Amino acid sequence: MSGNNTGQPIVPMDSGPDLPAMFDRYKIRVEQELSRSVQSPEGTDPYTLIRYHLGWSDQHGVTAQSAISQGKAMRPTLCLFACEALEEDPERALPAAAALELIHNFSLIHDDIQDQDVERRHQPTVWSIWGVPKALVAGDTMQSVGDVCLLNTARHGVLPQTILRISSILTDSYLEMIQGQCLDLGFESSTTITSADYLQMIAFKTGALIRSGMEIGALLATDDPAAFQAFSRFGNCVGRAFQIRDDYLGIWGDSSLTGKSAGNDIRRRKKSFPIVYAFEKAVGQNRDDLLRIYAQEEIDDDDVSRVLVILEEVGAREESQSLTETSAEEALEAISLVSLPTWARTEAEGLVDFLARRQY
Amino acid sequence: MSGNNTGQPIVPMDSGPDLPAMFDRYKIRVEQELSRSVQSPEGTDPYTLIRYHLGWSDQHGVTAQSAISQGKAMRPTLCLFACEALEEDPERALPAAAALELIHNFSLIHDDIQDQDVERRHQPTVWSIWGVPKALVAGDTMQSVGDVCLLNTARHGVLPQTILRISSILTDSYLEMIQGQCLDLGFESSTTITSADYLQMIAFKTGALIRSGMEIGALLATDDPAAFQAFSRFGNCVGRAFQIRDDYLGIWGDSSLTGKSAGNDIRRRKKSFPIVYAFEKAVGQNRDDLLRIYAQEEIDDDDVSRVLVILEEVGAREESQSLTETSAEEALEAISLVSLPTWARTEAEGLVDFLARRQY
Repeated sequence: MSGNNTGQPIVPMDSGPDLPAMFDRYKIRVEQELSRSVQSPEGTDPYTLIRYHLGWSDQHGVTAQSAISQGKAMRPTLCLFACEALEEDPERALPAAAALELIHNFSLIHDDIQDQDVERRHQPTVWSIWGVPKALVAGDTMQSVGDVCLLNTARHGVLPQTILRISSILTDSYLEMIQGQCLDLGFESSTTITSADYLQMIAFKTGALIRSGMEIGALLATDDPAAFQAFSRFGNCVGRAFQIRDDYLGIWGDSSLTGKSAGNDIRRRKKSFPIVYAFEKAVGQNRDDLLRIYAQEEIDDDDVSRVLVILEEVGAREESQSLTETSAEEALEAISLVSLPTWARTEAEGLVDFLARRQY
Repeated sequence: MSGNNTGQPIVPMDSGPDLPAMFDRYKIRVEQELSRSVQSPEGTDPYTLIRYHLGWSDQHGVTAQSAISQGKAMRPTLCLFACEALEEDPERALPAAAALELIHNFSLIHDDIQDQDVERRHQPTVWSIWGVPKALVAGDTMQSVGDVCLLNTARHGVLPQTILRISSILTDSYLEMIQGQCLDLGFESSTTITSADYLQMIAFKTGALIRSGMEIGALLATDDPAAFQAFSRFGNCVGRAFQIRDDYLGIWGDSSLTGKSAGNDIRRRKKSFPIVYAFEKAVGQNRDDLLRIYAQEEIDDDDVSRVLVILEEVGAREESQSLTETSAEEALEAISLVSLPTWARTEAEGLVDFLARRQY
């Protein structure tokens, strides 16, 4: 098997599968719910920063014309989908869905501070414009606005004990997410992480919030513990598929689609799945080169090219994609145990297909 | 009226009134509840950082022998007092009290990052030991552990809708606290803040969390809205008395008792009440000097001495203390409207006396 030295992808690029219809179906409602929650007077800190981060306005507070800087809102979408698939009005899960998005985005604002990242979603990060202190407060505010948002579930006549249970699920999953972030930070300086360690870490870091969204959506639709369990497992597998694909795109993605520079994760020394796998499998010269390159202060273009060759040679690219696809299949298996209307099953299939093959 | 130029206090120092008995009475129970909440395996991030910040262990994770680095736990103490004064078992308010302490301390960890403060309670701050990224995560974790803690209120058979109301009060007050912090940041560069602006800011920044603790304590004891209102007003006034006294000590306090260096708040250009008052009242040379000194990059010892003289001349010290005492009286007035057992009324009087005259 041979790689190339240019950082160019070997397979021809396309824009991949389309975003499943459920994203469009819920997007406007999620945004409306979010904007109800982030309602403080425009032009006041920290809400200006929150609006900017959510892609609603530019850094001067002027309402954005394009949605380019907005994320996919995957967590709320999955939460609403779980609720609707179990034949309940997704409206009921809207406050929780918005809370999920706020918690996810709050963690991104703080992540960008931690990693000193200056760009996200094709625009400068909050801290890089307003400085660390204000970005920190904007994140803290967002987390609490998420709590406020969740309490709005009462609007839909949901029982107080159910709201408390949802609140508990969300908080626990958020703490798992932090635990995953801490594990991830610890990985940075290690060259002996196994694939199993890595999968455990992303189950916390990425999986927990996705899983909890599914659980909450299910819980707001039905008391059936089997349905709850099925969507919980679905969420875990979808989270894994999503993250491993993300890792794939962080190395082999088309930067014009992902909004991140090509080979970015190698240059940033990120211990994503392909790299962890390569450290586990590489022998001889490949192993020596990996250890040398990752011990350096800076990783330059030649190093990136060399790492790309090693990744090809140990089969890290195929392994990543195969793991994504296995996870996607497991997700569908999990959900097959619960009775769903045909449209929902079809959409679940479209969703995992998208997550496993997306280009952005 | 004449000041002195040495930064020495004019009045003889004593250690002030003793910490009221209620602090000792509740302290161990609050700590037990907190340690139940911060239960993750020792030696794991971010819990090591949280334990350190709470004064339970040193920076190597070794259990602390002395409680010198622990705060007064004022917010939980006031919450438990409100509950017990209204003749309910304070045990019922323990999870909420611990949540208040966690939220307060989480905000301190983040404040220290924002202000780049390297010392708090006689020891190095969390970020100054472990760096900003880990301190940030430790704070975020603590906020969520606070949420988890609050949900434990269910243990005491409190109705779910009451827990939701408490959660809402706590979250709203936390958002008010942030709003206060943002106003405070804005004050840094302004020389035209009025005393009224300042009092509004501290009502948010300091008052909100103290008030909400009192409200929650009352709510867990009784359904009587008059009692809730009385303790809410009590909390507001106590918060103001506490903060203005804090401002006083930040300038004229004995550093061996406060744990902050003398004249610290002047050197740090902090727009605390005495300074805001001086900017409002100073004329002629005093005003010119204030404007000049606060426009400088650095405030040196001579500047600190000059500011101390100006503060004396405009009567900022008397005004600060008089405002503290008025607030203390208003606090007692507020609480006089509700029927309390004699012991509780006596303790409330001891409390406001302590807050108004404390030396640390």
